[in-house]
Amino acid sequence: MLTRVKSAVASFMGGIMAGASNGDNLSASDLPLKFPYMRPEFLGLSQDEIECSADHIARPILILKETKRLPWATGYAEVINAGKSSLNEDQACCEVVLVKKKAGGSSTPNKTPTSKRRSSLPNGEGLGLRENSDLDGLVLQYWALFDGHAGSGAAVVASKLLQHHIVEQLQDILEILRNSALLPPTCMGEEPNSTPVSQRALTRAASLRGAAGAPGSPGTPPTRFFSEKKVQHESLVIGAIENAFKEMSDACVNTLNQMVCRRSGSYTELDLTVCFRICPVVQWTGGGVEAPHESRDSSGLPGQGQMHRSLVVVFLLGKLYVANAGDSRAIIIRRGEVVPMSTEFTPESERQRLQFLGFMQPHLLGNEFTHLEFPRRVQRKEVGKRMLYRDFTMNGWAYKTIEDGDLKFPLIYGEGKKARVMATIGVTRGLGDHDLKVHDSNIYIKPFLSCCPEVKVYPLTQYEHGPDDVLVLGTDGLWDVLSNEEVAEAVTGFLANCDPDDLHRYTMAAQDLVMRARGVLRDRGWRISNDRLGSGDDISVYIIPLLYGNRQP
Amino acid sequence: MLTRVKSAVASFMGGIMAGASNGDNLSASDLPLKFPYMRPEFLGLSQDEIECSADHIARPILILKETKRLPWATGYAEVINAGKSSLNEDQACCEVVLVKKKAGGSSTPNKTPTSKRRSSLPNGEGLGLRENSDLDGLVLQYWALFDGHAGSGAAVVASKLLQHHIVEQLQDILEILRNSALLPPTCMGEEPNSTPVSQRALTRAASLRGAAGAPGSPGTPPTRFFSEKKVQHESLVIGAIENAFKEMSDACVNTLNQMVCRRSGSYTELDLTVCFRICPVVQWTGGGVEAPHESRDSSGLPGQGQMHRSLVVVFLLGKLYVANAGDSRAIIIRRGEVVPMSTEFTPESERQRLQFLGFMQPHLLGNEFTHLEFPRRVQRKEVGKRMLYRDFTMNGWAYKTIEDGDLKFPLIYGEGKKARVMATIGVTRGLGDHDLKVHDSNIYIKPFLSCCPEVKVYPLTQYEHGPDDVLVLGTDGLWDVLSNEEVAEAVTGFLANCDPDDLHRYTMAAQDLVMRARGVLRDRGWRISNDRLGSGDDISVYIIPLLYGNRQP
Repeated sequence: MLTRVKSAVASFMGGIMAGASNGDNLSASDLPLKFPYMRPEFLGLSQDEIECSADHIARPILILKETKRLPWATGYAEVINAGKSSLNEDQACCEVVLVKKKAGGSSTPNKTPTSKRRSSLPNGEGLGLRENSDLDGLVLQYWALFDGHAGSGAAVVASKLLQHHIVEQLQDILEILRNSALLPPTCMGEEPNSTPVSQRALTRAASLRGAAGAPGSPGTPPTRFFSEKKVQHESLVIGAIENAFKEMSDACVNTLNQMVCRRSGSYTELDLTVCFRICPVVQWTGGGVEAPHESRDSSGLPGQGQMHRSLVVVFLLGKLYVANAGDSRAIIIRRGEVVPMSTEFTPESERQRLQFLGFMQPHLLGNEFTHLEFPRRVQRKEVGKRMLYRDFTMNGWAYKTIEDGDLKFPLIYGEGKKARVMATIGVTRGLGDHDLKVHDSNIYIKPFLSCCPEVKVYPLTQYEHGPDDVLVLGTDGLWDVLSNEEVAEAVTGFLANCDPDDLHRYTMAAQDLVMRARGVLRDRGWRISNDRLGSGDDISVYIIPLLYGNRQP
Repeated sequence: MLTRVKSAVASFMGGIMAGASNGDNLSASDLPLKFPYMRPEFLGLSQDEIECSADHIARPILILKETKRLPWATGYAEVINAGKSSLNEDQACCEVVLVKKKAGGSSTPNKTPTSKRRSSLPNGEGLGLRENSDLDGLVLQYWALFDGHAGSGAAVVASKLLQHHIVEQLQDILEILRNSALLPPTCMGEEPNSTPVSQRALTRAASLRGAAGAPGSPGTPPTRFFSEKKVQHESLVIGAIENAFKEMSDACVNTLNQMVCRRSGSYTELDLTVCFRICPVVQWTGGGVEAPHESRDSSGLPGQGQMHRSLVVVFLLGKLYVANAGDSRAIIIRRGEVVPMSTEFTPESERQRLQFLGFMQPHLLGNEFTHLEFPRRVQRKEVGKRMLYRDFTMNGWAYKTIEDGDLKFPLIYGEGKKARVMATIGVTRGLGDHDLKVHDSNIYIKPFLSCCPEVKVYPLTQYEHGPDDVLVLGTDGLWDVLSNEEVAEAVTGFLANCDPDDLHRYTMAAQDLVMRARGVLRDRGWRISNDRLGSGDDISVYIIPLLYGNRQP
């Protein structure tokens, strides 16, 4: 599907905000950026405003203008980092999308326009979505936060494209989702409940005897009875979102790392061939530990990859699906109580998965790293002594006698925000970074990274919500300095003092939150307690009132 | 350490309750069982009583005699299965153990007697434990449940030996644990806080600059500063328990599967060479699905392995450590509220770990199994159609086009109690089973099984407890038919009607619980709702009052 034009180009180049151009056969470096650096479209900033926002000293807080509205009167605010990188590596996207049937109803992918984007339209008002959705589509609300790593490019691309991958996945199962009375069929084309009742009864009886089972070798006609797992509609939506993340990650290979530069037509045709150039950034290692090969040169990056962490919320058929692949966080605040809606994926939280992989596939460690964890780097003079360690099977610690092999660098090293995989990367889930290597080596990081999100479901319409019940989404810049409880207290306190009918109150609450988080840095200096870094990072925050989900048609 | 005498012996033989013998060079089949089949020692049953207890129709409930007492006035009751196997495959052990320093204080293992077992002694009363513990040891309370799979032998052995492995692990760190004022040293022999304060300050400053780190290649003298992880005492206890499970599993290899038959000396010398024979059982497949190779012959087992699942509780220095490797369950009931203290490990809960392993090491699947999951077995006529599937990255489901490779049998198949790994085994954690193969094949199950427990910590002395606040431990026979809430309601209701000063009330409550669970079977027949199997399984239950933990010296 993709036409790839490989070009020998320098890895990093300037001209981030290059204007449009029409050349068809240019070298990559001459090509315009299809998705140049910008701030979220819904902020409606001018070029001047975007440039002004990148002030790492004043750190102006950008908020949604009063005249602009997001679905459900969602509030939004953001601030750039305090010098970590020249650009804000966070990105955001919020849309109402109508998922329409594919032309012809075929189950094979085609290139017909299949979805309509409805940006900045609360509840689909004004575009007759209600009528359409009753006909042959499904409306979904979509909120996303992307937190770039080693550049802003990958996050910008994902903020433009990920929702289309989700829509494409959902199109395959549109008819099934709309038919909530019947369970999804195991095999497409089958009647959802084709098994006669009599046969079902027999299956149960067979199962009682312990004889239920699938037949022997493939090819023989089925002579016995199946026990068949029943899959709910909700699981199909989760699967669609999971696979959309995977597709987006694959697309990142074809764009970010290979500098694909064919100018594509309209992206509504789902041609993923997009053009952009990797933006130069100031590398800020954030207090990481020095690795055998890590480059600390601010002019370059370790490896050549780029990635981003994603936090995506989809509201569909009365349920919120919160998909997280990274260290952003979502919490629901209901009657002042916190309901966590995501788990962070970090080198520490994923240590055992990564160690297990390193243990099973030691060649991935390139004879430079050990899958064992130690509290600090082992020194040669300590060989023969007994030191604390953890293997992939352990959550606790024990002592082992140090051997020569233990002198290798630990696969996972450091604590909290300073924890790193192979001394290179502080995140373990995200899209992109396929070519990232440990500096000055041939050891790839990618096998240890995962693009898979964890999807949590909140059955919104099963609860009643007041105007102060909200879903808060924030990048790690927020959660590094404020706890769930602090955020809940701040938001609940702020909203209590606003007019409940003021649709701008959620943006004002988001602004208040970002201001508090930014203030922590100024109050406490770069480092705060618990070895967490100060709020020097980019901060992006949505505050989504859940009330509107109850009102959704 | 182990002397292995390999003998060609038949896999399964009788003579479960063989008496003692003194021969030194007998073949395995002639040897006495060092650990013959029995019921928990603390029940104090006669041989006659043990035989009477194995009535699969009447299913008499065994309880702790009033004259017997377990630590903390713990209650206990059990019942045999309803015909699943001839013997009760559950085992239990409860002891008070004094962990004493190793002779000479050396950190290398030695064979000096190192622990004193104090069975059936509540709170160590009467043996002067209080005085001893102040001198040079630590007292721990120990409760364990073992649920055998494919035989009772492995569970019997573990019920005798696991606590010694835990004690041995703890001996290594005894001095460190007793010195709660200082954090454990990273390297043994180091002063716990040897780093001068000035150097610490420098480390922090260096970290601020992002320059904290360990030096380059091994062998070069350290020229920079370390950031060092601080490990708490609690983590050492967790690590000790985790490694004790691993050691016990390794010991199972040397005993169960190789029929090691050297008669060992006293086990207090920690010589793990023990003798026993695998007990014959009636195979009961419990409604599993038929696999390509699965044997349904009741005279044999799939493979030759034996394993058991373990749930172990250790009370040490004011904290309860609940270690679970299997599908038993522990809950705390505090003021009528349930606090879950374990997670079950089943083919369903561990699906993604197992699929990931199968994906990464496809040779482990022996060209017979696919790591993908389908709702039912795929039929040849469905090749080319789109069917629901799940990969290791997914929690949701999606449709894929069926290919030839998908006709292989799924690695994980079935639902609930019928879920199986490679159509052979319904559990994913446990000790033993090293040689278990898929029937009539060379495909080993063991790589997919894990002996690692999950250890949860309850800081008991940080809470106050009343006489009705208890920890309930039960094998899956209990939890198959009663939910956490049903158990909490039953226990709380029962205890409310007992004299709070009656030390036998916890055993009576346990008896009541087992009676209820057994009753579910009789009321509902073999199968109950939700496709859970009825309570035809062995059931063993501890009820441990937490009050006594607060009173512990």
